[in-house]
Formats: sequence, structure tokens, C-alpha cells
Amino acid sequence: MKFGVVIFPSKNLQDAANSYRKRYDPHYALITPHLTLKNAFEATEEDAKQFADKIRQIAGKSKPFTLKTSKISSFYPVNNVIYFKVEPSKALTALHAEINKEYSEQNQEYAFVPHITIGQNLSNDEHSDVFGSLRMTKIDFEEVVDRFHLLYQLENGSWTVYETFRLGKE
Amino acid sequence: MKFGVVIFPSKNLQDAANSYRKRYDPHYALITPHLTLKNAFEATEEDAKQFADKIRQIAGKSKPFTLKTSKISSFYPVNNVIYFKVEPSKALTALHAEINKEYSEQNQEYAFVPHITIGQNLSNDEHSDVFGSLRMTKIDFEEVVDRFHLLYQLENGSWTVYETFRLGKE
Repeated sequence: MKFGVVIFPSKNLQDAANSYRKRYDPHYALITPHLTLKNAFEATEEDAKQFADKIRQIAGKSKPFTLKTSKISSFYPVNNVIYFKVEPSKALTALHAEINKEYSEQNQEYAFVPHITIGQNLSNDEHSDVFGSLRMTKIDFEEVVDRFHLLYQLENGSWTVYETFRLGKE
Repeated sequence: MKFGVVIFPSKNLQDAANSYRKRYDPHYALITPHLTLKNAFEATEEDAKQFADKIRQIAGKSKPFTLKTSKISSFYPVNNVIYFKVEPSKALTALHAEINKEYSEQNQEYAFVPHITIGQNLSNDEHSDVFGSLRMTKIDFEEVVDRFHLLYQLENGSWTVYETFRLGKE
């Protein structure tokens, strides 16, 4: 089955993201707004338990950190994903690197660009229209991240939380 | 904001529930299949943190237990909710009681009938049709529950996990 690791930001930030996702993101109903720390990967439940043990240790050794958003960006022309840009920080980059050391056969072909997706699977024309109207929007959130989550995917595509990991707590 | 406490059962059991929810449950896209331990309640984020501290202790003192489903039942005529009946067990009833001691101003007007909803908001005719065709279906799942989750609700009605509590672990 498929697993993934994400940060769910605060309710305020999720509500703001959903105001766009509702219109522009076909994954709107499958998962709430999130910052992906580790892309979906295939694992057995047994493997996932061991993975959870490892990232529980990583979480315990990490500290809560500040997450800041700044503006709306796009991965165009690589793909037509529009997102809230999250300012890279040492803590976030280190957490991402630590988590992705596990199951490192997973592809790492992209540099880590922390983001919260608000639109995807858009045609080129849609992307151009939507991003054109949103690109100057300021998205000024600043909040403390003190936890992240291991999820798994159901057959209908929706995601369920398997476990929460609190930073600096275990 | 609104909080709630649930058990997410195994992927197999969730997939089975979703095969019905897809057709019969308008909450299908708002939350994955679950057994409610504490109904939605209003709390501030600060209150919820304290509540999380308390139920983390409850989880730590509890032990994993077996969850068994048996058949499809309905709350009719109280309401038109159709569900997978979960066999009551001492452990499950005790966990429910412990969790609901907190925020006890919350109404407790119903006895605890552990269940996984697969249909709701049905008209009387729909309920009669659907339940008539499902009432003899055997739903034989048996699995170990070793965790539960505190959730909060976003403005669009969907639910995000705030924290996972592992039974007997903290």
C-alpha cells in the first residue's frame, strides 16, 4: 500500500489553501492541505511500522520550527502545479533530508521546494489564467510546526493518518 | 473550532466501508471511515492542547484491543444511519468512557453503540431500500486497535488529524 509523510499546517492556513483548492485542485476531497515531506511510496504494513519507528526517532531528535509562507508560485513549465511558497529553513530542510534517508530507493529527482499545493492538473490555458491572477497575491502566514504525520492511501485515493510524530517529544 | 476523537480502522476495513459510503454517505469526502469515540465538540486550540495532554495519558494507561465487526445495522427510527456494527468490548467501552469524562459538559444523551457509519442523511424510503438490501450482509472483520486520533474540522467541513495516541505507549 502507499504511504506518505506530510505536515498539516494550522487551520487558518489550511482554510486559506482550501479556498483555492476547491476550484483548482482535483485532490481537494482526498486530503486536507499539506506540505509533503516524503512523496508517496509503496511499502508493506510491516515495513511501514519499521519506518514509523525510525521517523519517530528523527522527530524526537528534532525541534519545533517556524514555517513562513510568502507568495503564490508555480512549478511551470515542469508541471502546472500552483502552490503557496514556503520559505526554506534549515530545520525544514534537515527534517526533509532525514526522513528521506529512509527508503532511499525512492526517487529524489527534484530538489526539495517546500510548498502547499493549491492547484494541479490544470491545462496550460487554465494554469496561465489562474496563475496570472494569483501571482501577485501575498500569502503571509507564520506559525510554529511541532508535528508531522505518516499517512496511507485507501483504494478510493483518500489519505488516512497512521501516526503523528511530535517534534522534540519522544 | 470543532474537535473530535476517532479510531481509523485498518485499510481493508476502511476500503469495505467506503464501498458503501461512496453511494450512501454524504460525508464520504470529508473524513475517511472511522469509529467515533467522542462526538464533535467546540474548543479553543488552547483547550484542545490540554485535552490532548489528558487523552495522551489515557492512551498510555490503556492497552491495544481487538475490534470485531459482525453485521450491518441501523439506528432507525432514531435516525437513518446505517453502519457496520462493532461488537462492544470492555476495553472499547472503557476507553470511550475515559475520553468522555473530559469535557463532560458535552451531551451524553445516547448510550455508546460502537459503529462505523456507512450511510446517513437518507430519506425514509432510501433508508428502507438500502437497509433492506444490506441487513443480511455479514461483515466479519477482526483486527487489533493500537491507536486513536484527535481531529479538528476545517471550514469546508473536512477533518484533519491533530494527533495520534498509541495505546499503552506513552
